[in-house]
Parts: sequence; C-alpha cells; structure tokens
Amino acid sequence: MKTVDLNCDLGESFGAYQLGNDQEILSYITSANVACGFHAGDPVTMRKTVQMALEAGVAIGAHPGFADLVGFGRRNMEISPEEAYDLVVYQIGALQAFVRAEGGVMHHVKPHGALYNMAATRPALAESIALAIYKVNPELVLYGLAGSELTRAGEKIGLATAHEVFADRTYQHDGTLTPRSQPNALITDRQQSLQQVIRMISEGRVLTQQGVDIPIQADSICIHGDGAHALEFAQSIREALLEAGITISARFAR
Amino acid sequence: MKTVDLNCDLGESFGAYQLGNDQEILSYITSANVACGFHAGDPVTMRKTVQMALEAGVAIGAHPGFADLVGFGRRNMEISPEEAYDLVVYQIGALQAFVRAEGGVMHHVKPHGALYNMAATRPALAESIALAIYKVNPELVLYGLAGSELTRAGEKIGLATAHEVFADRTYQHDGTLTPRSQPNALITDRQQSLQQVIRMISEGRVLTQQGVDIPIQADSICIHGDGAHALEFAQSIREALLEAGITISARFAR
Amino acid sequence: MKTVDLNCDLGESFGAYQLGNDQEILSYITSANVACGFHAGDPVTMRKTVQMALEAGVAIGAHPGFADLVGFGRRNMEISPEEAYDLVVYQIGALQAFVRAEGGVMHHVKPHGALYNMAATRPALAESIALAIYKVNPELVLYGLAGSELTRAGEKIGLATAHEVFADRTYQHDGTLTPRSQPNALITDRQQSLQQVIRMISEGRVLTQQGVDIPIQADSICIHGDGAHALEFAQSIREALLEAGITISARFAR
Amino acid sequence: MKTVDLNCDLGESFGAYQLGNDQEILSYITSANVACGFHAGDPVTMRKTVQMALEAGVAIGAHPGFADLVGFGRRNMEISPEEAYDLVVYQIGALQAFVRAEGGVMHHVKPHGALYNMAATRPALAESIALAIYKVNPELVLYGLAGSELTRAGEKIGLATAHEVFADRTYQHDGTLTPRSQPNALITDRQQSLQQVIRMISEGRVLTQQGVDIPIQADSICIHGDGAHALEFAQSIREALLEAGITISARFAR
Repeated sequence: MKTVDLNCDLGESFGAYQLGNDQEILSYITSANVACGFHAGDPVTMRKTVQMALEAGVAIGAHPGFADLVGFGRRNMEISPEEAYDLVVYQIGALQAFVRAEGGVMHHVKPHGALYNMAATRPALAESIALAIYKVNPELVLYGLAGSELTRAGEKIGLATAHEVFADRTYQHDGTLTPRSQPNALITDRQQSLQQVIRMISEGRVLTQQGVDIPIQADSICIHGDGAHALEFAQSIREALLEAGITISARFAR
Repeated sequence: MKTVDLNCDLGESFGAYQLGNDQEILSYITSANVACGFHAGDPVTMRKTVQMALEAGVAIGAHPGFADLVGFGRRNMEISPEEAYDLVVYQIGALQAFVRAEGGVMHHVKPHGALYNMAATRPALAESIALAIYKVNPELVLYGLAGSELTRAGEKIGLATAHEVFADRTYQHDGTLTPRSQPNALITDRQQSLQQVIRMISEGRVLTQQGVDIPIQADSICIHGDGAHALEFAQSIREALLEAGITISARFAR
Repeated sequence: MKTVDLNCDLGESFGAYQLGNDQEILSYITSANVACGFHAGDPVTMRKTVQMALEAGVAIGAHPGFADLVGFGRRNMEISPEEAYDLVVYQIGALQAFVRAEGGVMHHVKPHGALYNMAATRPALAESIALAIYKVNPELVLYGLAGSELTRAGEKIGLATAHEVFADRTYQHDGTLTPRSQPNALITDRQQSLQQVIRMISEGRVLTQQGVDIPIQADSICIHGDGAHALEFAQSIREALLEAGITISARFAR
Repeated sequence: MKTVDLNCDLGESFGAYQLGNDQEILSYITSANVACGFHAGDPVTMRKTVQMALEAGVAIGAHPGFADLVGFGRRNMEISPEEAYDLVVYQIGALQAFVRAEGGVMHHVKPHGALYNMAATRPALAESIALAIYKVNPELVLYGLAGSELTRAGEKIGLATAHEVFADRTYQHDGTLTPRSQPNALITDRQQSLQQVIRMISEGRVLTQQGVDIPIQADSICIHGDGAHALEFAQSIREALLEAGITISARFAR
C-alpha cells in the first residue's frame, strides 16, 4: 500500500505579526516545518507552534532559512557551504530545545525558501546541510525537492530522506519545477492538481511541460498554510488521497 | 579540600568583528560561557568556540542574553518571564546543537549581562530561567550571582547551581555587588582582589563596604577575557588559588 | 474656532508581514506617524506609506521607536539619553529621505510605544528626543502625551508641539493615562469616548478617575489603525467633531 | 593640474565592537564613506564618525550596504532593483540627518561591498541606486568603480560621479578588477602599486593582466582604514601623489 506525508510550513508569525492558519491546518497535515527565527518565527512563536503540533500529533521538523527576515528567506544569498552548515546546526538546535522541553521528539529538517532552492541544485551546499543535520541528530529525516542534490546528499551521508513533491506546480523534463517566472508554472485547476499528485504517488511518474513522462519519488506533499483556499485545498487533497487508497502518514521507511 | 571553578565569557565575536582573546584565556579557565547569537556571537563563531573549548578540555555553557546586539545585552529590557523562558530555551538549544555536533556534552548555563543582573533580584524572572534550563536538560548547572534569586530558583527546581563571585568587585551588606556607578565598586589592587577571592572560597565570607562580614558561597570565579591585563590576572588568580591549596575544577557536587 | 488633528500610526508592516488598514484609514486622518524600521516598518513599506500619505494629502511624521522588532517597540529598554538622541536622529533621517524623494515635506515626529511612554515622564530622555528633532529640522512638530515631559521639552527648545489625547483611555488626576493593567483604563462605550474627546477640545478639560476635573490641552487625537472597529470608530469621531463645530486639520499654530 | 580624491570606509564599528583606525586615517584622506547601520555602523557610531570627519574637514558620504551585518555586506543578495532603491534612500537619509544635525553638508554616496560589486555590472541595479541618490539629493556625488555600470548610471541621470580606482588591485582588459580568487589579484609591492595609481591619474591609463594598456578614469583612490599597514600606506600614497604634482581634493568638476 502506498503512503504519503502531508507537510506544511508553520510558526511563521513574528512578534506582533501574525501569519498563517496554524491551528486549523494542523488537522489536515502529518508533518509541520517550524520556522526557527531567521527568516520567520521567534522564540515565543516557536514554543507555541511546537505545543500545538504535539497536541495535534503532527510530526515536527525544523525549517531553517537564511538570516533575512525582511525578505522572508526567499532571496538567494551567496553564503559559503561552511556558513550554511553553521546556520543549519544553530536553527535545528534552537527548535529541538523547544521540542524536548515539551517532551517531544524532533522528526525532520526541511530547508526553507531560497536555501531549499539553492540546495536543490548545488552539491556542496546540499552536502553541508546534510552533514549539519547528521551531526546534530542522525535520526532526523531530511526533506528536499524530489530527485534533487539535497535528497541525494542526505542519502549519501545516511539520513532518511523525504522526496517532496508539489501538487500545484508543473515539472520540467529534468525533474525541476517550472520557475514561477514562466507561464504554466502553476496548476490552477484543482482536479488536474489532484490527479498529478496521485499519479506521482501511485505510479511514481509525472508528465512534464515538455510532454515527456519522467519518474519521480513522492514521499511528502507540500501543503500551503495561508492564502484564501489553503484549508479547502488541504481537505480536497486528503479526500482524494484516501479515496485513491493512499495512507497519509509521516512515518518513512529508511 | 576546597574547589573552585574559573569561568569566562567566550565566543563574543560577531561576523567580521573580533572580541576577546578566546584561544589564550582557555589555558587558564575551567568553564566557558559561550554567547548564543542574541547579545553577541553568531553561528560560525559558536562552532569555532565550541571546538576550541572542547580541544582545551574546558566545560562549555550557554550564555544567553537579551536580543540586543548593539547594546551587547547590557541594557535592561522589560521582558515578561514567559518571554525570558522562551529566549533561554532557544539559546541553550542553539549552543547545545554545536556541542553535540562536535561530540561534546553541555555543562552549564549562565545568563548574560542585564539578564543576569535582573534575574539576580527578580524571583519570577529567575524562576522562568531556571525552568527553561530544567526543561531543556535537567543535568545542566545554573550559574548565578552568589546568594541571588537566580541561584535560589535553580536550587528550588532541582538544578545543580554554581554561586558566582567576583574577584575585582566589592560587596554590599546584603550580598549584592556595589553598583559600578558608585566609587569603590571595583577593587583595583590585585593583591586585595586575590585575598578577597581566596577568603570567599576558604572561609565562605566576604567583608562588605559597610564593614560587616557576611557569609558567601563561592563556587565559581568570573574571569574577564578581554582588556589589557586579562590574561595576566587570570594567571595570578590561578597561582594564588593553587598556593592556597584550592583545587580548580568545573565539577560541582550537587 | 477650535481645531484638532487626527493622527494614526501607519507603515507598520514588515516584509511579508502585513499590519493595519493603511489605505483605508488615510481617508479619516490628518496626520500619519510612519514607522521607521526599528520597531516596525522597512524601507519598502516606508516608501509605499509615504506615497499613499502624500496622495491622500495627509501630513507625514516619523514614528521612531526602540530597536526591538520582535517586541514591536513596546518593551521598556534602559537606553541612555545620548543613545535616544542618536536613535531618533537616525530614524527621522531615514523617513525624511523618502518624503523628500517623493517631493513632500515632513511635518512631525511622534515617538513610538515604550519610547513615547518613557519620554512622557523622564525629563532627560524627553530633552534628548526634542534636541534630536530640533537639530535635524527645527520646523518639525513634536507630538507627545498632553502635558507630559515630552511636550514640555519640545516647548523649551522651541519646537512646535502637539499635545496628544486619547479618546478611549481614562485619565488620572495628574494628567497621566490610567495604566492598561488597571480596570477602567479603557473607555469601551463609544458615546462616552466621543463626549470625553469633544470636551477636551472644546473646554480644555477632562474628568479624571479620581472624580476631579483637570485642564488638558488637546491638539491631536490618537486614532487606531487596526482592530475590528478601527475604521468605524474613526468615522464616528470625525462626524462627532464636525457636528461639534471643530475643524479637523494638521496645521498647528506655533 | 591633475587632482585626485582619497576616500576611505569609516564608521564600521558596531556597538561594543570596534573596527578601524578612524581618527588616525582622517589625517590622510579627503573623503569618508560612513557605514549606515545595515552592513556595519550604528546610530551612535554614525554620529561620532560624522563629528570626527567634520572636525577633520573631510567630505562625508553615505556608504549604504546590504542588510547583512553578520556578513558585513560582502555576500551577494538577490534583491530587486526596487528593493535596492529603497535600501539606498533609507541609508542615505539616516546619515544625512546626522550630517545636518552637526551643521554639515553631505557630499557623496558610495555603495558598499557586494552591493558595489553587483552594481558595477548590473545596469538595472545601478540605475536604481543612481535614481535613489538623485531623488534624495541631486547634489550628491556618486562614487563607483571606474568605467562601471554604476558610474554610467550616475552620469546618465545627471549626477556628478567619481570613478574609483584601486592602488593595490590589478585590472583586466575589460576594466574590471582581477577577482580576489585569482593569483595576481593584489599588488603587494608598494612601489609598483604607487606607480600604477600615479599613471592612472597622470596618463589615464593602466596596464592590464593581459598585457594590454587600457584607458581608465581615476577620480578617487580607495584607501583601506584597517590592517597593519593602512596608515603607513596612506602616508606613502599621499607623498607619492604630491611628489608627482597631483592635487589631493574631494572637489570634483561635474
């Protein structure tokens, strides 16, 4: 039987600034990527988010990003692989302390935004991130773009990895996402989006923008936590998955 | 036989900014309080400092402070006890990850600057800090001003505590330090400073500015890591302690 | 004929974080206090806010605050008067550049949050802030709590000042606001709130919580820009003022 | 008669962190680029630096950089031209306020580090920076790498520009600096360095690494303010220039 994880970025509020529908989205997902105070999040928000996720029985992961709060970690920064290593160790540690203080166990790490994207294609950066995770806690699962340098680096060092796919994004023949700057980057038709994601899980294949069918590993689906239709879409995807006989769970085989 | 610990604030550099003689001072001390990126320090500096301290066989502690880099954590901030709890959990966790990644074990926590001073006299703040440490890792030793609300809070919750004394500061009849704004706050004569600290350890007493002798518990002596005479003074204090038959070690009985 | 200004804090968004109904509230107010990037706001938000305010014909002021983004500048920080001077010069300058770049003229300065509150009662801090404003641009109007040390400092140095009053807050016999920690700090009845504010403007008097009537100078009313009923309340107050024959304008006589 | 300006980055300290020999280097230079609090500097440091520069009769410029304190503004960040515009307006304004508060007049703007380098080759970024300067104050001089997109953008919009050259760096046949990652990027021989810079000013030409002689405009020479031999080198270059009959001044013809 096929299994898939539904992950969502959580804990992105900062001080007086509220972002996302964290409490609501927790009912639909199996794993939460919690911001660690660099691109979003702050110590108070992190504790509250960890408490909510534990209460909901959702697996908790660190979501480390660039030290770029005003840019929300979405702008590429040319940091060295060594700086990335230290950035990731720091942020994992900070979140892990909240999880332990609440009696929980941390489950995974998913780099955020520009760090995630850069690590998908740059081997040295990807290996630094994988090493940081491995050295802090080799039991942590590394989430990365399906078939990317990041998942490759995780597998190489001996981490469990989760290949992440996107329901609402189209794919290129080399397995990368169509850049948002291009037309057809987004799948706006819900039915089409659900069909793509179920096919990725059931058959391990996706039809690319070039009309070529390619293999893809789909361990986890990225769910958006904000936006007008976030909760509605999360509900649809759950129903479609269950209907297709797919189990929703954050437990990965190594 | 009497035992005392010599502690020093380390890892206070930030990016391109260098502060302190970390490598040199490590030869003289038994425990290092490592800045955690809020009032000083950054991920790169933290990793390097942890590596140096482990190499030197010096016990490593977290040195959490206010999120006030430009003020070096020395300015009082009216944060709530809950905010203090989260601030401390976060910073302990960040440092702990570096220690674990290097195969070490974290030893203690000493709040920094204004947070240290405020926690010395405010019970609710002190209890929040002690709780934060206890919940992240109950094996950690809490360093606080000797006889303060902070050490009291640590003992109450069941943490090992280290009562910290200052060689170069004078004391008031209630056991507090003479504020720096007052004359006679500092002991500038080295011999007098060494005599005060040895008497605190050997006899458990100190002569206050009011001419009254009071009891004091001296588990750890604060050593300064920068300034013109820091290393020289560290050497003098080591020699004076050994001559007085006092063992220098970071191992505390609970 | 009586005149009063309606001011509101604007430009409090930060990066991806949106706060307030800036565009909507601009229709109701005569002066805007624009956050300058320390407690809230960022360069992009500042430019957009200045453009919106100029478009709406609303007077623009700087709203300098503590360097405490996560605390939204609401937590007291023990900075020196000299540090406050530099903090205010910096923030006024940053905003002034956006105003000039858009062809506008800056009108006033209103300290934010904890800095505003602390300056209301501490003469040295108030004088530093007034000096900072005066030296950057002596034509700027200083907004401060009515009858406070801040307005006093402004008048002493020769700045035009705007005594600010609050429609929804109760007053103490010494002219200070009833602290929010006390019951009866807030006036929740809209009618009562409107009556208080109109009496302050028309008669220059307010009934305090001690049952004593005291004189008060009401040059500007603080309007809240967020919250469920902000726009509705702004509309009510405008109508009540016009009905009472009071002119709404940001032009103060010196 | 030939004229050249000697500029140096100043005010790079931050809070407790001291950097550079600002007071000493002021005797040797004619213009100072003052950090504005994003990559380095803070409000207190900015005021003190402005006071020192005015006292020394040295022309003052803003030195805006990326919001990357831990990276000292030296790491490329993929910000949009619009974000760069706002970043530069903000930082110029902040410094300008200190200059005006002290009764001075701001003279120029020189982007810092990675922003300077990126603007040298990217026309849209360069034009945004030039526009920001022009709109805040069209009298400001724009300093940029000689013959770069940045000086080109300044000239296009109507700003006075200063083409900056480096005494201790070698040049490529297209007028760019040899990247530091390559051997021969630096000229370590002082005599050779002085000869290169004097030839650039006197003849308007430089011999490139490819053995080709190219034309170069040398309005201002970048002087380093820290490092062991900074002051000594500054003195040598002054002497060599005066000996070669070159006037040292920050007054540029438009």
